[in-house]
Amino acid sequence: MAEFKIFSDPVHGFVSVAAGLLYDLIKAAEVQRLRRIRQLGVGYLVFPGAEHSRFGHALGAMALMRDALHQIKERGTPISEKEAEAAMAAALLHDVGHGPFSHTLEHDLIRGLRHEDMTRVIMARLNERVDGRLALSMSFFDDAAARPFFHQLISSQLDMDRLDYLRRDAFYTGVSEGVVGVNRIIKTMQVHPLEGGPDSRVVVQSKGAYAVEAFFIARRLMYWQVYLHEAVIAGDLLLRSAFRRARDLGDRVPDAASDLMFFLRNRIDRGQIEEPEVLDRYCRLDDSDVLFSLKEWYRGNDHILADLSRRFLDRDFLRVMFLDREPDPDTIARLERATLEWMANRGLLGADVRDEGTEYDYYTGFAHSSHSAYLREGPTIAILDKAGRLRELSDVADTSAIAALSEPVTKPYVFAPKEILALGM
Amino acid sequence: MAEFKIFSDPVHGFVSVAAGLLYDLIKAAEVQRLRRIRQLGVGYLVFPGAEHSRFGHALGAMALMRDALHQIKERGTPISEKEAEAAMAAALLHDVGHGPFSHTLEHDLIRGLRHEDMTRVIMARLNERVDGRLALSMSFFDDAAARPFFHQLISSQLDMDRLDYLRRDAFYTGVSEGVVGVNRIIKTMQVHPLEGGPDSRVVVQSKGAYAVEAFFIARRLMYWQVYLHEAVIAGDLLLRSAFRRARDLGDRVPDAASDLMFFLRNRIDRGQIEEPEVLDRYCRLDDSDVLFSLKEWYRGNDHILADLSRRFLDRDFLRVMFLDREPDPDTIARLERATLEWMANRGLLGADVRDEGTEYDYYTGFAHSSHSAYLREGPTIAILDKAGRLRELSDVADTSAIAALSEPVTKPYVFAPKEILALGM
Amino acid sequence: MAEFKIFSDPVHGFVSVAAGLLYDLIKAAEVQRLRRIRQLGVGYLVFPGAEHSRFGHALGAMALMRDALHQIKERGTPISEKEAEAAMAAALLHDVGHGPFSHTLEHDLIRGLRHEDMTRVIMARLNERVDGRLALSMSFFDDAAARPFFHQLISSQLDMDRLDYLRRDAFYTGVSEGVVGVNRIIKTMQVHPLEGGPDSRVVVQSKGAYAVEAFFIARRLMYWQVYLHEAVIAGDLLLRSAFRRARDLGDRVPDAASDLMFFLRNRIDRGQIEEPEVLDRYCRLDDSDVLFSLKEWYRGNDHILADLSRRFLDRDFLRVMFLDREPDPDTIARLERATLEWMANRGLLGADVRDEGTEYDYYTGFAHSSHSAYLREGPTIAILDKAGRLRELSDVADTSAIAALSEPVTKPYVFAPKEILALGM
Amino acid sequence: MAEFKIFSDPVHGFVSVAAGLLYDLIKAAEVQRLRRIRQLGVGYLVFPGAEHSRFGHALGAMALMRDALHQIKERGTPISEKEAEAAMAAALLHDVGHGPFSHTLEHDLIRGLRHEDMTRVIMARLNERVDGRLALSMSFFDDAAARPFFHQLISSQLDMDRLDYLRRDAFYTGVSEGVVGVNRIIKTMQVHPLEGGPDSRVVVQSKGAYAVEAFFIARRLMYWQVYLHEAVIAGDLLLRSAFRRARDLGDRVPDAASDLMFFLRNRIDRGQIEEPEVLDRYCRLDDSDVLFSLKEWYRGNDHILADLSRRFLDRDFLRVMFLDREPDPDTIARLERATLEWMANRGLLGADVRDEGTEYDYYTGFAHSSHSAYLREGPTIAILDKAGRLRELSDVADTSAIAALSEPVTKPYVFAPKEILALGM
Repeated sequence: MAEFKIFSDPVHGFVSVAAGLLYDLIKAAEVQRLRRIRQLGVGYLVFPGAEHSRFGHALGAMALMRDALHQIKERGTPISEKEAEAAMAAALLHDVGHGPFSHTLEHDLIRGLRHEDMTRVIMARLNERVDGRLALSMSFFDDAAARPFFHQLISSQLDMDRLDYLRRDAFYTGVSEGVVGVNRIIKTMQVHPLEGGPDSRVVVQSKGAYAVEAFFIARRLMYWQVYLHEAVIAGDLLLRSAFRRARDLGDRVPDAASDLMFFLRNRIDRGQIEEPEVLDRYCRLDDSDVLFSLKEWYRGNDHILADLSRRFLDRDFLRVMFLDREPDPDTIARLERATLEWMANRGLLGADVRDEGTEYDYYTGFAHSSHSAYLREGPTIAILDKAGRLRELSDVADTSAIAALSEPVTKPYVFAPKEILALGM
Repeated sequence: MAEFKIFSDPVHGFVSVAAGLLYDLIKAAEVQRLRRIRQLGVGYLVFPGAEHSRFGHALGAMALMRDALHQIKERGTPISEKEAEAAMAAALLHDVGHGPFSHTLEHDLIRGLRHEDMTRVIMARLNERVDGRLALSMSFFDDAAARPFFHQLISSQLDMDRLDYLRRDAFYTGVSEGVVGVNRIIKTMQVHPLEGGPDSRVVVQSKGAYAVEAFFIARRLMYWQVYLHEAVIAGDLLLRSAFRRARDLGDRVPDAASDLMFFLRNRIDRGQIEEPEVLDRYCRLDDSDVLFSLKEWYRGNDHILADLSRRFLDRDFLRVMFLDREPDPDTIARLERATLEWMANRGLLGADVRDEGTEYDYYTGFAHSSHSAYLREGPTIAILDKAGRLRELSDVADTSAIAALSEPVTKPYVFAPKEILALGM
Repeated sequence: MAEFKIFSDPVHGFVSVAAGLLYDLIKAAEVQRLRRIRQLGVGYLVFPGAEHSRFGHALGAMALMRDALHQIKERGTPISEKEAEAAMAAALLHDVGHGPFSHTLEHDLIRGLRHEDMTRVIMARLNERVDGRLALSMSFFDDAAARPFFHQLISSQLDMDRLDYLRRDAFYTGVSEGVVGVNRIIKTMQVHPLEGGPDSRVVVQSKGAYAVEAFFIARRLMYWQVYLHEAVIAGDLLLRSAFRRARDLGDRVPDAASDLMFFLRNRIDRGQIEEPEVLDRYCRLDDSDVLFSLKEWYRGNDHILADLSRRFLDRDFLRVMFLDREPDPDTIARLERATLEWMANRGLLGADVRDEGTEYDYYTGFAHSSHSAYLREGPTIAILDKAGRLRELSDVADTSAIAALSEPVTKPYVFAPKEILALGM
Repeated sequence: MAEFKIFSDPVHGFVSVAAGLLYDLIKAAEVQRLRRIRQLGVGYLVFPGAEHSRFGHALGAMALMRDALHQIKERGTPISEKEAEAAMAAALLHDVGHGPFSHTLEHDLIRGLRHEDMTRVIMARLNERVDGRLALSMSFFDDAAARPFFHQLISSQLDMDRLDYLRRDAFYTGVSEGVVGVNRIIKTMQVHPLEGGPDSRVVVQSKGAYAVEAFFIARRLMYWQVYLHEAVIAGDLLLRSAFRRARDLGDRVPDAASDLMFFLRNRIDRGQIEEPEVLDRYCRLDDSDVLFSLKEWYRGNDHILADLSRRFLDRDFLRVMFLDREPDPDTIARLERATLEWMANRGLLGADVRDEGTEYDYYTGFAHSSHSAYLREGPTIAILDKAGRLRELSDVADTSAIAALSEPVTKPYVFAPKEILALGM
């Protein structure tokens, strides 16, 4: 009789994993590391319940993959044990390349990095360790397999990653608007041949069309209420300012976690991620290096870095404010001057690592957030109607609602110290 | 110390009611009757969990009213004990005028009836019984009170009725897309003065704008997934066909529940609802009269009525199918002929109460469903921004999303026996 | 590709049923009738959310059966498609013999009836209709099949019936203490050979022992908080008093629902349940006959029956009060006299169908409730420990806790008009 | 109008905090630090969802305190604004003295420390910072206030701490058996005078007795299923072994987080916790220091410390196994020898900081877990029956059930490497 390991997931209930490849992967240090990386980066400072890590998400995506494959099989598409295991492994590992605080520092540690690239490198390393048993999984991940629907379940607009993270993040943040009927969507999935070819794709039966629409709506609401919440952006910017300052300080940066220092002191580029030292050090990094370093820097002798670090640790954020329109250059210049004055009053100027008068950008700036919930270009969602025809989602649901979801929404914002923004823009 | 009665509501938790007016009203036969009227009419035949009655909804609306008033008071608007009690009583009684199967038979029992009219008449009767203590409540219900925000909480686009029924119906149907953050919305409500006058209205703070938008989205999804679900419409039409047949049969209708027979045999008009016999009999009617009568008719000697009754009891519905466009007259004529033939084959023709060849309309017909989630005309939702300005909801949220919600969506449909529709339209 | 019908169950999520035997059974009038029979009898008058019917429970038990069989199969016990279907059919039909208001009137309509007997008769009737395809199902129900574990899943201390109803009733009543980790229990089930024979039984792995213990605890709490709640007993007794009065009136009982009158006017015995007229009429009975009849009796000319009926409809119950000990004969006599006086004051005496001075027993009486959560005699729960040995549940869990659950708890109570009990016992 | 800060808590919903003392305390570095201390210590390595911190629990206990005071007031006991604020502050701060990984390291950092002592010292420090506004709060915490029921709500068998953590930990672990009807319990609380004195205490109305009993049952189940789960104990022991090794190494311990090293290198005693350096350093410590240090030690040159650290980081625990009885000395000696051999085979011996042959105790040992869910000695739970009498909980509920909960359950266990235990004891 097979041995099983059962995980109690508060979101999906019991997740059981049989002894074998999947269980071996879960035990790998690279996957265990995900327990020490917060799923929502700085989000826990805004939504106090959202302290969950990438590890639970990885298990969840794997569990949903099993459900989806089970459903697809029941609807008549044969799937072998080996394929099922490979698809589940890909779902388990899809985020293994994330670094500390997930997306926040993605570009600050390694220039131009996309975490998917790192996932690929780490999968290759794991593949060696398991004697090539991850090869099929990697071909699914890379969309290089004969049946493209496996890739679609791993990476597309309606993949197991998204189904899990929306549901999970809504659970932990307590934002009920994000609660999605994941089970309802999966129960209406099936695989359908593509016209004019041997290939096939995952489609949704028409009875699931509203559930899919609801999923994209929930996605939009979660973006604006959680992922792009003003305070979450403020936390992101604060942490990134601290890291920029640390890098700017060069040799003068107070010593902290050594693996993190390696990435701050050397300008690693995405082309180097397969170098053993880079990869080894990256695979050791987690949130604790960042938090520990901030605590060291807080007590260090650079005033700006100490201030930024303290603000993060004590959640004394700068403010982010969405604007109705892009600010004009005069407003920007005014804000920069006000910020420099504000810094001077607090003894934050005088460090010589920057050209004098440019230090404002640790504390102020303009940018914008942008999000499209549903992309009508590229691979879209296909709905299978009762007559057996495939139709694009927006042809089935209320066109105006889907159109609204497809339109990118862009919001300019300013960030700066509270005291300055309180005076009005 | 005050005496309390505590109700365990699976949706909102404990609801406690102090001895006094509210508790007396709950004990009234007119309110207890709501326990025997299904909230979703025939919806329980499509969503097996949705067997809940209007009684729980009445308690729920009352409980949310208390929460909203508590919140409004905490934000600085004084509300007296008497006003709070009156507003809660109005929320409790707002649906007391509903008849059996809620909306389904609303127009079939009394010509032109709107259940709100009946609510008003029953409130007046209860008011006599409680020595006029419902007067303030009635003025809130009729928007005749000095402070209009009370009426707004009872009847508007964001009233306690809607907040409760969406949340409640999502709970019982298991349609997670309809789960709304009711608590989130109420926590951002406050009362704000109207410009140029002594009046005031309920507004929502800008941090609640997304929750309100989510509410309208959930409303739209619940309409199309539940309230206007094809099978729910099919059930509605079947029940109404049975009642039309019963009425058409005149004296030949098999005897059934006497209070129901009164409304079938006499053509009562909405102008008569204050007549004592009409009102007495109406206040005794509930779902059990309908179900009992269908069981009698099933065994009666009119084949059409027997067939329609059996179909309802055994959930052997006719089919409703949404169409892409309005059907042309030829299609309609073809369908009517096919239906007559279908009826003839089943021995359903031959009754002489109708002109021969017109009986098809018990079994087939065309109509359309229409719904607008948010009305941008009339009283809209006002959002209070951080600068203290009032803005209409669509100015604050993504305009395109709200625009999509405001557009009425209309879906033509056909209903007919399954066997006929299976041949294609 | 197989056709599926999907039900949205708020408790277990989507339940899908493939076209075939199971779906045919669900469509049968006998099963659809369960939609009109409240799961908790009069419980909805105490827990306003608990208006759910036996139909949802039947679907739920069937869904859990599928989960359990899936689990058992995965743990290495082969189960054929035919066996799985038969076990699911048995779970679906296990309560099909219930009459109106479930347990309340079980003994008042047919002398000595146990609903299981009626279930057996109705299964036999359905079996004829489906050309014998229910034979295996019936053998599981009757514990006459080769592999006894199927019967165990249908009827034992840890069967799908109990797992579903506890979870479901907790959901609808809002009593969180009754929420059971059904999924957790099922995930630890497997089939284990019985010593010294070819047979096998369902056992629970030791990691599930606490979940099973929690199930029995929840069961005990649900009994005392819901099923045997004072007000629920009061409602039961009131309804049964009305029926006793109706029967006592003989020919003088006001006319009401004819199928119900049949059982009231004729003294049907459990030996007669296979007689066609008895069975036909029983299969038409549901809650609406009872409610409709109460409304007729309320307006009838027997004062006692009218009063009892009104009290039920308006939820103006008599009171039930638990006592510390059995009352002595003097107390009983005193209460009977007080009740007669109370009745006289209300004009409830004077009817001549009873010997004068004995009418008190419609309004007062003594009895006791008794419940054992876990039976340590007869077939107990077997836990499979890590070393592969079977141990009885109480050997594994804290012995004292299980001992407490096994002890029958008995509570004597009195019921009588509130006004009398308010004077003290 | 007052300013409010709203927290979204996935367990209790929105928690709003008005500007003022409470909000100032939440912003304090000492309270923000709780965001970096896992509520369940190593529990997240066994229950992957249980990654929540002490911060959410602190907010939750504060929110429940508000609900309880609201309820008590409504039942007729006057509570001033000042008292309410003080009680809520005490609930917010009750755990502020916890160190990294909560209970796990409580005794390993400071000899003899109880976290309550540290809470008291930190409250005193905060009190200075807020100009004495915490004085009343401290008197509640210390049970030194005139009305003892405030202390009872902060620290007793049914305090806000326990109500919150059970509910919260059940939510995050997904262990449904622990879900408690917190709201139900609070709604039945009131304050009742103590006989023979001016004092008063919190009591529970008899209708809440089952909910309270359910709470103690849930508590027992959570202890055995979560807090004292074999793998949780294994994780605790592993972490504590690593710390013991680090301390044993003296000067030879590889450098790591400096604040942590301070406690490892100096033998701080609970008598020293008011010394400024001790307190400053303690208030900086959090889980990241521990995780960072383990990562350093993993790469350090002590084999035992490296092995223990890696095992913790990669969740490669030693095994804990509950025993039926205490082991005899021979078994113990045999296990110690086997462990030494096991260590030798893995190159873990040879370090000279311990007497040769005693190093087994990093890897093996015997101990026992013990827990009583309800204490019938000391301050018990008082139930107010309908006649106005106070009765001890076990007099009201089923005596045998409460008796079972009161009995301490003790389980001896062994811990050792898996490979050794697999050979049997």
